[in-house]
Amino acid sequence: MPNSAAVDAALNAADANIETSLERLFDLLRIKSISTDPAFNAETRKAGEVLVEQLAALGFDSSLRDTPGHPMVVAHHEGPEGAPHVLFYGHYDVQPVDPIELWDTPPFEPHIAEVNGAKRVYARGSSDDKGQLLTFIEACRAWKDTAGSLPCRVTVFLEGEEESGSPSLYDFLEEAKDELKADIALVCDTSMWNADTPAITTTLRGMAAGEITIQAASRDLHSGHYGGAAANPIHVLTKIMADLHAEDGSVTLEGFYDGVEEVPEDVKRSWEALDFSTAEFLGEIGLSMPAGEANRSVLEQTWSRPTAEINGIDGGYTGDGFKTVIAAKASAKFSCRLVGTQDPQKVMAAMRKHIDERLPEDCTAEIAEYGMGPATQLPWDMPHLTAARQALTEEWGTETALIGSGGSIPVVGNFKRQLGMNSLLVGFALDSDAIHSPNEKYELKSYHKGIRSWVRILDALADVTG
Amino acid sequence: MPNSAAVDAALNAADANIETSLERLFDLLRIKSISTDPAFNAETRKAGEVLVEQLAALGFDSSLRDTPGHPMVVAHHEGPEGAPHVLFYGHYDVQPVDPIELWDTPPFEPHIAEVNGAKRVYARGSSDDKGQLLTFIEACRAWKDTAGSLPCRVTVFLEGEEESGSPSLYDFLEEAKDELKADIALVCDTSMWNADTPAITTTLRGMAAGEITIQAASRDLHSGHYGGAAANPIHVLTKIMADLHAEDGSVTLEGFYDGVEEVPEDVKRSWEALDFSTAEFLGEIGLSMPAGEANRSVLEQTWSRPTAEINGIDGGYTGDGFKTVIAAKASAKFSCRLVGTQDPQKVMAAMRKHIDERLPEDCTAEIAEYGMGPATQLPWDMPHLTAARQALTEEWGTETALIGSGGSIPVVGNFKRQLGMNSLLVGFALDSDAIHSPNEKYELKSYHKGIRSWVRILDALADVTG
Repeated sequence: MPNSAAVDAALNAADANIETSLERLFDLLRIKSISTDPAFNAETRKAGEVLVEQLAALGFDSSLRDTPGHPMVVAHHEGPEGAPHVLFYGHYDVQPVDPIELWDTPPFEPHIAEVNGAKRVYARGSSDDKGQLLTFIEACRAWKDTAGSLPCRVTVFLEGEEESGSPSLYDFLEEAKDELKADIALVCDTSMWNADTPAITTTLRGMAAGEITIQAASRDLHSGHYGGAAANPIHVLTKIMADLHAEDGSVTLEGFYDGVEEVPEDVKRSWEALDFSTAEFLGEIGLSMPAGEANRSVLEQTWSRPTAEINGIDGGYTGDGFKTVIAAKASAKFSCRLVGTQDPQKVMAAMRKHIDERLPEDCTAEIAEYGMGPATQLPWDMPHLTAARQALTEEWGTETALIGSGGSIPVVGNFKRQLGMNSLLVGFALDSDAIHSPNEKYELKSYHKGIRSWVRILDALADVTG
Repeated sequence: MPNSAAVDAALNAADANIETSLERLFDLLRIKSISTDPAFNAETRKAGEVLVEQLAALGFDSSLRDTPGHPMVVAHHEGPEGAPHVLFYGHYDVQPVDPIELWDTPPFEPHIAEVNGAKRVYARGSSDDKGQLLTFIEACRAWKDTAGSLPCRVTVFLEGEEESGSPSLYDFLEEAKDELKADIALVCDTSMWNADTPAITTTLRGMAAGEITIQAASRDLHSGHYGGAAANPIHVLTKIMADLHAEDGSVTLEGFYDGVEEVPEDVKRSWEALDFSTAEFLGEIGLSMPAGEANRSVLEQTWSRPTAEINGIDGGYTGDGFKTVIAAKASAKFSCRLVGTQDPQKVMAAMRKHIDERLPEDCTAEIAEYGMGPATQLPWDMPHLTAARQALTEEWGTETALIGSGGSIPVVGNFKRQLGMNSLLVGFALDSDAIHSPNEKYELKSYHKGIRSWVRILDALADVTG
């Protein structure tokens, strides 16, 4: 059977089975696999177990591997002699659901609603990343159901700690190096350019994230008795944090821009040619002005420039009403998004210095590190990229955009550094999916055509050698 | 009979009757007058009734006045022709007793225990404020028992809602203005400088307190997708808050120091002469350096200088672990302690301006007001102050300290603004009395010499004219 007929058969199977594909997605979405909250440890493990079972049923040699944190799913399936070996990566854990009161329906009771003629799956994790990872597994199912085999040798590797900083990833990859090393990694955790235009993400920002805790007095104080004399850790913290940015929006950490390079002119031009409206991008979230570095486009700001953001701040009395208290301590969670060859360790050291320089003698500052990873840049001329791009263009009938991503997908850096393996980042999420927010959703079209896209990509990659 | 002989007679009577004075204190302490808990409404009323009876027995025209809350005690006694009219204020309600398990003996079973040679009365309210208010009534008794009259015209005004925010005070004072307006108010609800040194509190700081909420995007955002382009309300808030103070610790709000005057040199010198150790004061709370305005002593900082403190800050993800979120909003609770003639409304308006000047166009800021009240400053040259100070110095054999208080006593502001009346704050509590805490106590010496002090002060004030 020539490739095209086999692809058509698999695509038809994907279409015919979409209802049962959705049932499997709903089963997975009902599991509260919030990895960052220990109260959900058992549920998180259960999500991994369900996926191990699904993969085993498809003929994968599938197992759950324990780690000091949440377990990894590893599943192997042979491919034709001489076909490439691809490693598929996704994560089965999800973000917390707070603020729960802003959800229109319960986050772990998935349902389909039609908005402006488009069907959407609403649930925490529908887009990030359970819906996305299942597009690949369901594509494998379509191939197995029709050809009885897969076009490539496939290893599926699913993590349960992506939303809590992947603390066990490094050690696990070190141990399982030989088992997981493939010709190329396929990572499904990114977005399309827009609802009609598929995209492959070729640049990813890295990260240096942590939490600062400032301690002043040994106990909370009455602001009448002590106010004006006692150090207030919230004042110290706001000063440290306010000083992170200069007037022009640039980050003031010493040496922060070492390793940050300008994007090549032709790439910059292709970004300018994209159908992108700053007013719409910001207007959709209630804003009107780019807030970061001056004289940079929003695509530059989010794809090719580093940031230092405060993700959370907490100190003193935060309940209803008022309390005349001077807190003993205050804390802030922060994350620096990195580009080029910025070194996360050096950035964290610069943060430490920035804090120490602003710390009164009798206050202390502790920094906890939450996640560290350098940025990633895919080689523009890689044959896997060309093949996957063409397959996506065929499925969607529109030229595939090569885009950057402001987010970090640390595993891509780990694959590169630990396994010497590049990653193709193909995903079907939309910016409107509200991932990490209340009312997260995944377009039914993303799910269905995502499955079809992987059917085609697996076939296209089978022909790539080397 | 010359004054001195009359005073000696009254002092001797106070000494001779100390045992029965204590019995009357114990009777009052046994009544569970917890004003904030409706379960104790009847007990709270009973405490008022007992005091009305005690005052009537002393020849006062004494009555219980109903309010929408707990009743007020008002009692009048005539004085010699031309003698000043003094209004004595105290409160007969007490704080709740939780955590009850930390009391060594039941809070409403008063008893005397000797610690390091000093006898103490242990009970809820022994110091705050039943013991203190009875020092004045027992002084009146000593005068009546010996002279058959009082040296001044006296009105006693006792509140039963001080520990629950004085909700009925304003309206009651408005209605009873003519009846309560006197030449001077005597308020017995403050502390001595130390166990041997009497004090008159001459400055009380005021307050302008509120909460700022900064709103940026219409929803929480993923810091990867939007970081570098979208406004982060925590950045905006930390910038606004960090800018509240200059490098020298002064507050930057426009016009903030309008109405703030330097303390007279002689008062400053008397503060310097007080037995006060900055190292001990700060060391006890784990600090070593005064953190407020540069080149000011701690006593200046807390008694005579205004502050702007952040009492709480909250925004973004503050749970365990980490979340790559850019929050939609962030908030901070703040309070400015005011001195001199600083205007709370003007301070709040300056805060509004400070915020607006630092607010990006597409962010909004809301301010909720939590509490507003000007400071109190007794005129340094007031003859009542001079007379009372001298009387206290004679009783205690040590120079009376003129001190400030960093906190607020709202009734003093009400007397000033509603009745145009200054207050002399004379109290015999000690910092070690554990008011509002388990095992509250009042030194027997405070009670006994407190009575004797009022005997002398009433006599001294009789000679003050105008």
